[in-house]
Amino acid sequence: MTSTSSTHVLWGGRFTGGLDPLMHAFNQSFRYDQRMHAADIRGSIAYAKALALIGILNKEEEEKLVNGLRAVGREWETGTFKPADDEDIHTANERRLSELIGPLGGKLHTGRSRNDQVATDMRLWLLDEAASIETSLKALIRVMVERADNEQDILLPGYTHLQRGQPIRWSHLLLSHAFSFRSDLERLQQLIPRISVLPLGCGALGGNPFPVDREFLAKELGFKSLAENSLWGVGDRDFVVEFMMWASLSMTHMSRLAEDFILYSSAEFGFITLSDAYSTGSSMMPQKKNPDSLELLRGKSGRIFGNMAGFLMTLKGLPSTYNKDLQEDKEPLFDTVDNISACLQIAEGVIATLVVNADKMRQALTMDVLATDLANYLVEKGVPFRETHHISGRAVALAESRKCQINELTLSDLQTLCDKFTEDVHATVFDFEASVERRNAIGGPSRDKLKRQIAVLRNYLAQ
Amino acid sequence: MTSTSSTHVLWGGRFTGGLDPLMHAFNQSFRYDQRMHAADIRGSIAYAKALALIGILNKEEEEKLVNGLRAVGREWETGTFKPADDEDIHTANERRLSELIGPLGGKLHTGRSRNDQVATDMRLWLLDEAASIETSLKALIRVMVERADNEQDILLPGYTHLQRGQPIRWSHLLLSHAFSFRSDLERLQQLIPRISVLPLGCGALGGNPFPVDREFLAKELGFKSLAENSLWGVGDRDFVVEFMMWASLSMTHMSRLAEDFILYSSAEFGFITLSDAYSTGSSMMPQKKNPDSLELLRGKSGRIFGNMAGFLMTLKGLPSTYNKDLQEDKEPLFDTVDNISACLQIAEGVIATLVVNADKMRQALTMDVLATDLANYLVEKGVPFRETHHISGRAVALAESRKCQINELTLSDLQTLCDKFTEDVHATVFDFEASVERRNAIGGPSRDKLKRQIAVLRNYLAQ
Amino acid sequence: MTSTSSTHVLWGGRFTGGLDPLMHAFNQSFRYDQRMHAADIRGSIAYAKALALIGILNKEEEEKLVNGLRAVGREWETGTFKPADDEDIHTANERRLSELIGPLGGKLHTGRSRNDQVATDMRLWLLDEAASIETSLKALIRVMVERADNEQDILLPGYTHLQRGQPIRWSHLLLSHAFSFRSDLERLQQLIPRISVLPLGCGALGGNPFPVDREFLAKELGFKSLAENSLWGVGDRDFVVEFMMWASLSMTHMSRLAEDFILYSSAEFGFITLSDAYSTGSSMMPQKKNPDSLELLRGKSGRIFGNMAGFLMTLKGLPSTYNKDLQEDKEPLFDTVDNISACLQIAEGVIATLVVNADKMRQALTMDVLATDLANYLVEKGVPFRETHHISGRAVALAESRKCQINELTLSDLQTLCDKFTEDVHATVFDFEASVERRNAIGGPSRDKLKRQIAVLRNYLAQ
Amino acid sequence: MTSTSSTHVLWGGRFTGGLDPLMHAFNQSFRYDQRMHAADIRGSIAYAKALALIGILNKEEEEKLVNGLRAVGREWETGTFKPADDEDIHTANERRLSELIGPLGGKLHTGRSRNDQVATDMRLWLLDEAASIETSLKALIRVMVERADNEQDILLPGYTHLQRGQPIRWSHLLLSHAFSFRSDLERLQQLIPRISVLPLGCGALGGNPFPVDREFLAKELGFKSLAENSLWGVGDRDFVVEFMMWASLSMTHMSRLAEDFILYSSAEFGFITLSDAYSTGSSMMPQKKNPDSLELLRGKSGRIFGNMAGFLMTLKGLPSTYNKDLQEDKEPLFDTVDNISACLQIAEGVIATLVVNADKMRQALTMDVLATDLANYLVEKGVPFRETHHISGRAVALAESRKCQINELTLSDLQTLCDKFTEDVHATVFDFEASVERRNAIGGPSRDKLKRQIAVLRNYLAQ
Repeated sequence: MTSTSSTHVLWGGRFTGGLDPLMHAFNQSFRYDQRMHAADIRGSIAYAKALALIGILNKEEEEKLVNGLRAVGREWETGTFKPADDEDIHTANERRLSELIGPLGGKLHTGRSRNDQVATDMRLWLLDEAASIETSLKALIRVMVERADNEQDILLPGYTHLQRGQPIRWSHLLLSHAFSFRSDLERLQQLIPRISVLPLGCGALGGNPFPVDREFLAKELGFKSLAENSLWGVGDRDFVVEFMMWASLSMTHMSRLAEDFILYSSAEFGFITLSDAYSTGSSMMPQKKNPDSLELLRGKSGRIFGNMAGFLMTLKGLPSTYNKDLQEDKEPLFDTVDNISACLQIAEGVIATLVVNADKMRQALTMDVLATDLANYLVEKGVPFRETHHISGRAVALAESRKCQINELTLSDLQTLCDKFTEDVHATVFDFEASVERRNAIGGPSRDKLKRQIAVLRNYLAQ
Repeated sequence: MTSTSSTHVLWGGRFTGGLDPLMHAFNQSFRYDQRMHAADIRGSIAYAKALALIGILNKEEEEKLVNGLRAVGREWETGTFKPADDEDIHTANERRLSELIGPLGGKLHTGRSRNDQVATDMRLWLLDEAASIETSLKALIRVMVERADNEQDILLPGYTHLQRGQPIRWSHLLLSHAFSFRSDLERLQQLIPRISVLPLGCGALGGNPFPVDREFLAKELGFKSLAENSLWGVGDRDFVVEFMMWASLSMTHMSRLAEDFILYSSAEFGFITLSDAYSTGSSMMPQKKNPDSLELLRGKSGRIFGNMAGFLMTLKGLPSTYNKDLQEDKEPLFDTVDNISACLQIAEGVIATLVVNADKMRQALTMDVLATDLANYLVEKGVPFRETHHISGRAVALAESRKCQINELTLSDLQTLCDKFTEDVHATVFDFEASVERRNAIGGPSRDKLKRQIAVLRNYLAQ
Repeated sequence: MTSTSSTHVLWGGRFTGGLDPLMHAFNQSFRYDQRMHAADIRGSIAYAKALALIGILNKEEEEKLVNGLRAVGREWETGTFKPADDEDIHTANERRLSELIGPLGGKLHTGRSRNDQVATDMRLWLLDEAASIETSLKALIRVMVERADNEQDILLPGYTHLQRGQPIRWSHLLLSHAFSFRSDLERLQQLIPRISVLPLGCGALGGNPFPVDREFLAKELGFKSLAENSLWGVGDRDFVVEFMMWASLSMTHMSRLAEDFILYSSAEFGFITLSDAYSTGSSMMPQKKNPDSLELLRGKSGRIFGNMAGFLMTLKGLPSTYNKDLQEDKEPLFDTVDNISACLQIAEGVIATLVVNADKMRQALTMDVLATDLANYLVEKGVPFRETHHISGRAVALAESRKCQINELTLSDLQTLCDKFTEDVHATVFDFEASVERRNAIGGPSRDKLKRQIAVLRNYLAQ
Repeated sequence: MTSTSSTHVLWGGRFTGGLDPLMHAFNQSFRYDQRMHAADIRGSIAYAKALALIGILNKEEEEKLVNGLRAVGREWETGTFKPADDEDIHTANERRLSELIGPLGGKLHTGRSRNDQVATDMRLWLLDEAASIETSLKALIRVMVERADNEQDILLPGYTHLQRGQPIRWSHLLLSHAFSFRSDLERLQQLIPRISVLPLGCGALGGNPFPVDREFLAKELGFKSLAENSLWGVGDRDFVVEFMMWASLSMTHMSRLAEDFILYSSAEFGFITLSDAYSTGSSMMPQKKNPDSLELLRGKSGRIFGNMAGFLMTLKGLPSTYNKDLQEDKEPLFDTVDNISACLQIAEGVIATLVVNADKMRQALTMDVLATDLANYLVEKGVPFRETHHISGRAVALAESRKCQINELTLSDLQTLCDKFTEDVHATVFDFEASVERRNAIGGPSRDKLKRQIAVLRNYLAQ
């Protein structure tokens, strides 16, 4: 087994052999963790200041270190940073720092470990991403609320079991999805404080051996609280899991939204037409216009779940504190962030631009979806619901046997089923708009209750 | 052209017509959802009152219905309820009600659907269970805090990568796990309001067609808020997913705690001895005392994850509102509740009763875990940490080559590695208690910072 | 220093000492593993014979043991076995045996451990179940093949992206699902030999300390091979995982089949009508006929996946050989077996009895699904496909702008798009049956290639 | 919403708008599917030949196309291929082909769809990778077998529940893991034929509309069989799932191997020392030598499981044939292939180079692991095992109370527990080598049965 002596490892002292080159690649995280370069620099600058506060660095050293770190940061921003087969972003930045400012760079890591450093970097990085995801999520909810407000006149069948159930408003359907995303928003806002916990100063596992002021560090870096136990601080990855669980649940909502809209885009439903901006064609079938955007939204729910499920398995049964297995936290988290961000924006675009085919929706409102209303008509006349349900069911069967709609049954037809039917039955029952307006208890699809839903959501977004 | 049933004999050997008995069993949920009998009765009583408030029931009817429901409830409590091949608990209770009070029973379901009913039952049921789980979780945290407070003198090596790293206090380790469970407690408390959302009054999907007062219902049943959108109300199962995600993450913590303690129970570590109450023997090997309790705690993390993962897959890609697939929510939820409840109590018992072998812990504190302290000694003398780390590494290697401990290297041995070593080195560095006390930044294992951790946790528990 | 139990009162409120009753329940597997009673008895009878062969039992003892075991077995079969708070089925059977035949019962476990015993029981049990599942799977495939053979005349659109693509035969669609299940059948047949590996004789972990003849045991119990390494024999649960992976993949097929048929059962598609035997109604909406059977088939794919995923997590990172965590293998396996068995039979029933609405399928065949044929018409005239695809696309757009079907475009309309169109274009292209028959390469939906598919499947089933 | 008009899309004809640029990126798979460039070229060359055989191309056109495709292939091999914002690898290759040979390039896709093309590419690509993974897997098994053959003299305790159980040979432990990987090898070999099924010629979904000779295609491309149903051919992803399930199970084995060896590398066990080539140090703690290779092997079991779990969720509930969701198949498959390949090679390296500390293993063999042998001694004297187990347990307890080892109990001590003990007891029982040799039934750790295991594995590898 050949071995190379890699020069850019922080722990070379004790080792006499070298690494298997394949092991070198296997172990190296730089190819993906370089993404956290800015967070790593920020954390190091704060740490240098903290070391100066306790006299480990004098003023001049502090300034030199901070300036050096800023210079490294600028190299990243300008795309001029040159990797040198570094093990990870922490090593890379410290290596470059020492190239720029000499052996003083070696003071930066005093009392610090990559264990507390990487946890700090990840939390800082994720806090930024979560803020931007929160913005996208709000935009998605907002577009639904606006459409819902504008398109209240459009009726369509509401479905259960994918069978037509009762008439509802299109806005009511849109808002039902908006409420799912509103819960996602609430959950996201609740988990952010648990990301915002400072690990820096926990050391390798046993705490910082110098009297470093961690409250200063937290303030400097914008953390809301600090890890109160150093073992917990280096070994905890709840913030990664929790974010991925959050994304998995949110993507489950996305998959259900996508399913609805894929169905509605089919020739058979025909309820909506996606913008060309979110459709693609077929390489073989010239007539096709495919809802690829929605299918990808639906499909990516699996991928994001997989990231979460995989990392939970990685965590399962690990001894406490840091184990190298934890290095497997980054790729799924990064992939999750990238994909949920894209999905939220795509979904917003899809919904903003789709065309509603109100006529097709209206055509799907067959009279059988008023069978409940027929039953309720009799309830108003004092017949127990269980019985009216049965009578209405027989009306449906009768109409079916006559190959007509239930509103085409005559009064006397209906009276053979129940003598409580009177002349007003057709006018009262067989009116979709009236049916929808009747369902005016909170949560219902009446105009009044739509207004309430819209207000609830707008208030929440305005917070 | 339509295939008629007359041709089915060609391929439908199993069937002669009518209801497939296997389908009957496949569809029936009574065998497990009967568990929610009390919640179902409570919901129905509140609903009867709400129907009375809007005149669908008169006072007498209301009283008869409520009394009838209470009578059914008593049959459940006394174990005298007789199932009759009912499809589900809702059907069973209504069937029995009508047996007791006659056709009036048929009025109860007015404007209600099993879709809003079952969601209400599940939320009511889970609210009770979650409260009791919260109590168990607090008890588990409390037992760790109490032990940690009492056993601060005991030192042991802290591990990363399962290699000895630095000396810590046993209490510090216990508290690191307690902080994970504290996060679980916070999360649980945050999700409870999202369980406490009233679906009743959402109907089948399109809302309640009568002016039922849902705010009254919410108050009557103790819900904190109401479903603002009826489609959402019948189709949402976030509360099930979220609870199972919560349990999965909490069980991941449990699995890591169990792993630590299984290791510590091995002959090789020998740090702790489980109480006989939580151990079992072998049917073949007479000397064995196995940590079965901890292994089950670890193993059950998989099962609970599986419940969550499976149900998320069930939800994925469903059209909105109610689909029968949602019936698959109950068994995983019930199993999760049962198992996490048991696990929390078992864990509390295990931790309360285990015996700490402080001598074995102390013996595991070999001098190499002070190598960081040796490096830090030189840091105090102004040598950059990166260099001191290297020097200390060479000291470890030297001791290894001499087959001695690093504290057995003489001052002049050390001075060959760095001339900054002076006579105080042995006394300063090679003292485990002093090393632990030096790590006195917030989050560290010093007595002072343990006190802080304990206070933080006690305050949280006292809220 | 050791914490003694005298201090436990400080934090161990729940305990006064002795066995925690909750732990007793937590540890006990009898409530579910009693299901393997017959396998356990079979294994023990074989083991008693093997002990006799090597002289650990004399002839009389063997006979007494075997008869005793048979008596216990009969108690199970007749429902007269009385549990006595037994830890597991092995303990229960041995306890009862000793009650029946006295201390001689204590010889049965010689050289055996519950570790090799339980693995043997589970494999025996699963072999029986797998055989019956194989039968159900074949029946499901067979019903699809028979329908496909009988209903070849029925055309419908084939979909990609849930958009109409090209005309196909209904039989072709049915057979596409049958081919997925055929792969499942192949996989099941391949994994059975890996279930059929004898662990008995592996002892607790280190092998059997007596010269027990394991080849005799294998033959006696019908195992195809034996565990060649005792550590592997007691610690391996691949057969459990593999079976659950198998079931998860098969259920993914089921979920796709269910999705197709749920869509086809909707009012909008209307392609099929489920038998009443596999549908249910709504408690609120009298007109509803819901495809509950299909929805449960789809939903249960999640549950079965969850069983697999959960147990894989349980296994992850366990030390080798037996750990108590492995006890978590039984419930997910049992649940998987029960559910996949039911699903296969329900699916068979659903497919056997559904009614195909050929007219509705025919109505969905709009002319745009022949756009590929229009492109291919020009290919036959020498135009590169990429160009013909474009021309056909423009024809579709032209028809759309005129709100007509593409076959309503005149020859001269078409010739404005490409001068290669000639008079035969309408007759050649716009004929669904002809289009289907043209696709006669292997795998296509032509009658000839349907015949081939049916023959392939029948041959496979006949093996 | 701004939109760009991307020129490199295959289906531009029908669209009048353009794509949202974010949607463009969301939809584009070129960044990862370019990896299959060689397979894509191979498939196209074969397809060009097949088109020529049926006269769609004349000899000259065929030659020009094939040469053009080879030229494109060379550009990939030499790194000179220039992407041009292509949607996917198929589009990229066809685009480049047409740049090189003109409009004739447009004939290549005749009768083909990207739906059958991508499935063909993936299967071709995976067949190559699977072959190389098979080689690595065999190498891993081989290194275990060789070490096992060489190191048969080394004894150590076998563990269950991580408690010392019985003495075994180190080789026996190694081989137990080898047998798990042997099952993986068998499974891999069985699934390869299910990858090797030709989709090409299935078209978009409904088959190939020209009489293309798919048996020729299969032969040309080395496929073992062909998709017999075109809908199945474009919509099936079992080969992706099955490979990832295979990898997940194999990685579960890896995680258990890693767990054993991480434990054995700890200071407390000390049984093995990893080569420096597979270890790394700490950035803070100079004395650390961490088993990072093993921890990554263990950790990556989660990631690979996540890939499988996620894609299964993506598949769940999709309508049959091709849906865009299927595009989510590639990234998890590629990641799985890359990681399992690396893991197998790293594991081989780790095992090949680790140093066994036979003395430490021997020291861990405390006399209590012979308690079963003590019980068996009495079995040989005719005492029922259940009783001897109890007696031996009391001997262990007696030794514990005297703080001695059980072999230090005198004969008369033992005789107080059972009068069947005679003078030979110490010599017979308390000899580790003898104990191991006594367990000579098949599957046991005796030298003879090790030889058998090694032969079984070598035979299998030689196949």
